[in-house]
Amino acid sequence: MRKGKTFIICGPSGVGKGTVVARLLASDPSLYFSVSATTRPPRPGEEDGVHYHFLSMEQFEQWIAEDQFLEHAQFVGNRYGTPRLYVDRAMAQGRDVLLDIEIQGAEQVKRKRPDVVRIYVAPPSWAELERRLIGRGTEDMEKVRSRLARGREEFSAAKDFDYFVINDTVDRAVEELRAIMTAEHCRPEERMALIDR
Amino acid sequence: MRKGKTFIICGPSGVGKGTVVARLLASDPSLYFSVSATTRPPRPGEEDGVHYHFLSMEQFEQWIAEDQFLEHAQFVGNRYGTPRLYVDRAMAQGRDVLLDIEIQGAEQVKRKRPDVVRIYVAPPSWAELERRLIGRGTEDMEKVRSRLARGREEFSAAKDFDYFVINDTVDRAVEELRAIMTAEHCRPEERMALIDR
Repeated sequence: MRKGKTFIICGPSGVGKGTVVARLLASDPSLYFSVSATTRPPRPGEEDGVHYHFLSMEQFEQWIAEDQFLEHAQFVGNRYGTPRLYVDRAMAQGRDVLLDIEIQGAEQVKRKRPDVVRIYVAPPSWAELERRLIGRGTEDMEKVRSRLARGREEFSAAKDFDYFVINDTVDRAVEELRAIMTAEHCRPEERMALIDR
Repeated sequence: MRKGKTFIICGPSGVGKGTVVARLLASDPSLYFSVSATTRPPRPGEEDGVHYHFLSMEQFEQWIAEDQFLEHAQFVGNRYGTPRLYVDRAMAQGRDVLLDIEIQGAEQVKRKRPDVVRIYVAPPSWAELERRLIGRGTEDMEKVRSRLARGREEFSAAKDFDYFVINDTVDRAVEELRAIMTAEHCRPEERMALIDR
């Protein structure tokens, strides 16, 4: 049985990563999408273990002390992390794993697991990303500008990533992500072991 | 316009590389399959520029002196080489290029062009390769054994290749080759230049 691989998906707010990831998951039930742990309280409708693993601050710090996270970070007073356990279990079952995390988290994971594959989902252009962010209609121009500025910064930081997928159409982006996952299972380390000598 | 990339396909005699390459070429007319140059005389039905570029020994040596080959070698008194000109022309037109060459040639090309992608087409097992070689019915057991021994040697030499495609079924091998070509066009060097700043 082939071993699972971990793919990190990063990209700026508004690029349409959620749609692309949802399509990918729908097309391949064997894919495991990593559920983050957080200390923020659940919102109405959010289920433990589905949307997040909801932890107390004490539990979260315990998990850090036990090296239970592949990466973790803090945003506006709440903590977020990627639990190692579920990722490792899925990979041991031969399932590929998707991590939808921030670029700083991607760097943490890469240091712990040099064999992860890092994919950056990019907009066709910054003008297009601005249109998409404004089109959402949920944010004022101040927030749109700050998200764009952050996106451009992360774009430069992502130059060491393995792949860039441009989300001009969802179909094409999904096709490219699938191709990347297929190709990464054709690496000699994995394949040479499969051929009897 | 995207720039073409060069993909080297190696693999042991009998693995079915010809079938896989033919299917790949039929499915994508933009692919350029590199035609080798040789000093051996044309066989009945062989056309210059289609099956080979037929050169005299003097011309071949002239081309070497002018650094016109990406790689060249000698087999049983005849010389064979991959002309640089047609490869470069196709890539400049945005076409991907396939080189079906020996593993020593692949090493020569890699030294000259570090950005080539090297793919090894492997049999599912050595027993299966033996069956395929015997099944051809064109060679005596002595030749089959020598081809198998050479295949095993090359297999070890191919451990530095970028990808291994196992030809268990032609459909799957072709799908993997296509995925590799798609993925290799998602590299940051190529993609970052496409996104306006």
